[in-house]
Amino acid sequence: MHPNDCVIGIDIGGTTTSLGFVDRHGALICEATVATEAHQPAETLICRLGDAIETLRGTLPSDVIISGIGIGAPNANYLRGTVENPPNLDWGASVNLVELFRQQYHLPVAVTNDANAAAIGELLFGGARGMKNVIVITLGTGLGSGIIANGELLYGADGFAGELGHTVVDPTGRFCACGNRGCLETYVSATGLCRTLCELLAQRCDPSPLRDVSFKNLTAKLVYEAACAGDSIALSAFDATARILGMKLADAVAHTSPEAIFLSGGLAAAGELLIVPARHYLEEFLFRPYRGKVKLLCSELPAGNAAVLGAAALAWHEVDNIAIDPAGGNPI
Amino acid sequence: MHPNDCVIGIDIGGTTTSLGFVDRHGALICEATVATEAHQPAETLICRLGDAIETLRGTLPSDVIISGIGIGAPNANYLRGTVENPPNLDWGASVNLVELFRQQYHLPVAVTNDANAAAIGELLFGGARGMKNVIVITLGTGLGSGIIANGELLYGADGFAGELGHTVVDPTGRFCACGNRGCLETYVSATGLCRTLCELLAQRCDPSPLRDVSFKNLTAKLVYEAACAGDSIALSAFDATARILGMKLADAVAHTSPEAIFLSGGLAAAGELLIVPARHYLEEFLFRPYRGKVKLLCSELPAGNAAVLGAAALAWHEVDNIAIDPAGGNPI
Repeated sequence: MHPNDCVIGIDIGGTTTSLGFVDRHGALICEATVATEAHQPAETLICRLGDAIETLRGTLPSDVIISGIGIGAPNANYLRGTVENPPNLDWGASVNLVELFRQQYHLPVAVTNDANAAAIGELLFGGARGMKNVIVITLGTGLGSGIIANGELLYGADGFAGELGHTVVDPTGRFCACGNRGCLETYVSATGLCRTLCELLAQRCDPSPLRDVSFKNLTAKLVYEAACAGDSIALSAFDATARILGMKLADAVAHTSPEAIFLSGGLAAAGELLIVPARHYLEEFLFRPYRGKVKLLCSELPAGNAAVLGAAALAWHEVDNIAIDPAGGNPI
Repeated sequence: MHPNDCVIGIDIGGTTTSLGFVDRHGALICEATVATEAHQPAETLICRLGDAIETLRGTLPSDVIISGIGIGAPNANYLRGTVENPPNLDWGASVNLVELFRQQYHLPVAVTNDANAAAIGELLFGGARGMKNVIVITLGTGLGSGIIANGELLYGADGFAGELGHTVVDPTGRFCACGNRGCLETYVSATGLCRTLCELLAQRCDPSPLRDVSFKNLTAKLVYEAACAGDSIALSAFDATARILGMKLADAVAHTSPEAIFLSGGLAAAGELLIVPARHYLEEFLFRPYRGKVKLLCSELPAGNAAVLGAAALAWHEVDNIAIDPAGGNPI
């Protein structure tokens, strides 16, 4: 292993795609962004990424070696190397991103969804270092999750394990974009918090500055700011969100018994407002043998770079696995 | 590996403890039962088991070699080798069964709970052969579960992973013996079925022969027989049970994405009455990417011997692991 080895981590979002060169210790050496242009085919994004990679490479010493590429993308399937029916990209039913990248780069390439990438990132570079059984929850527009058991990310039989955002809170509950009802992410996510706030505005009579904001203009940030200013309805919305999060995390513990659960993503930045009551509710709902044993923590990855670092961690994991299994590929 | 190698599988129940000599292919060579005598210390059970083992051994050809011992017991912890606060045994806070057995037998010994043993049994000897990602649900007085991911049983950080019986169906629901409310096993188990039947007797007006049976005298077998005879309330009780099972199995799929889920234990013997509607509800509640991919099947282990075969499978797993890892022990 050359001391100047690094990998490329790429995070594909609906609007912007971020990339960075990341070393073995999780240091971001350099970074860039390109427009995703969601309405264009994947191949054009890969061309733009290629240009950005060349530009970044030009800024680095010549002895830096790129060992692999890791990609986080919506609806990505690690086992197949594909992105399938991505909700915010006009890429069709299935695009094999790993094949497309391998046509241009003779390197180990792996793709997974952003929550799985966040979980591997936490394991390699964040607060989960040294742990073997961990769940990472990403709280953004939706709720994503990555589950690590026995030191390995769970992909399951079809590559789509760890979709806690679509476990059921209430089978007669809120409509979810997935077509089902009562999914966890309709309650616990930035949009879930806003829906809860709206429900509380209807149920209760307390005055609140948020009564002047339309549903469409309501954001988790506005709810957060109102809660920080002591607004009782906003505070209740955080408490209700934390209660459902705690209840469903207790279910998750009863599946894989992790030693810690990490929260990351935009809503996790609400910090004490969410995590303190969530810890309380988690303990309350936990099956007795687990009580007092499961830590609920904030991600230790820097918020702005978590996705790129996670994708880079996936790349390092792939590089190491291929190094162990000579049949697995041919790193350069 | 000697062709006449076998292991001893032991299933410790509240009243009766079963044991059997089991070969590499899951054939039960000979078997016996001893009284558990739940009010006596574990050591006395081990003495009685020792006598039974000697008697069984005497009936076998002299070239049969015993390679290991596997034990299924309530509240057993594989990682620690202990049985902790068993609900139906006066054994106190913790008994290290593995140590107690190793004092008498210089063999690999492992202990786990009966549902985990059932899962390993299904994997080695049953319908899950060749599968890597599987969940096994045992439906008896309660609901137990064993989760296999990446080909290995999940124990989690504390050895107690896979307690789906204590995931939450309804936080304001039925009281559970564990102290929480609305646990899955208060709905989906032999006792859960009886509770649902009783609720339906109160809610509805249809005549039913079960209106003549006291709550205390009600059994899953009576409900099953009434359902087979076309009793509408008993049929509804099975349907309601199957619906909650399907809903919570959909949650389990969203965690580990298994290719199959196996039902075993007493209530699973209700067969079509439970599994056919459960398959329907599972599909209904599944997150779309999983639909049509997860098989819900009956255990292929013979009902009467499933627990002993599961414990034997655990023993074989231990023997093989120790053979791979020379530091793990010293098989004879």
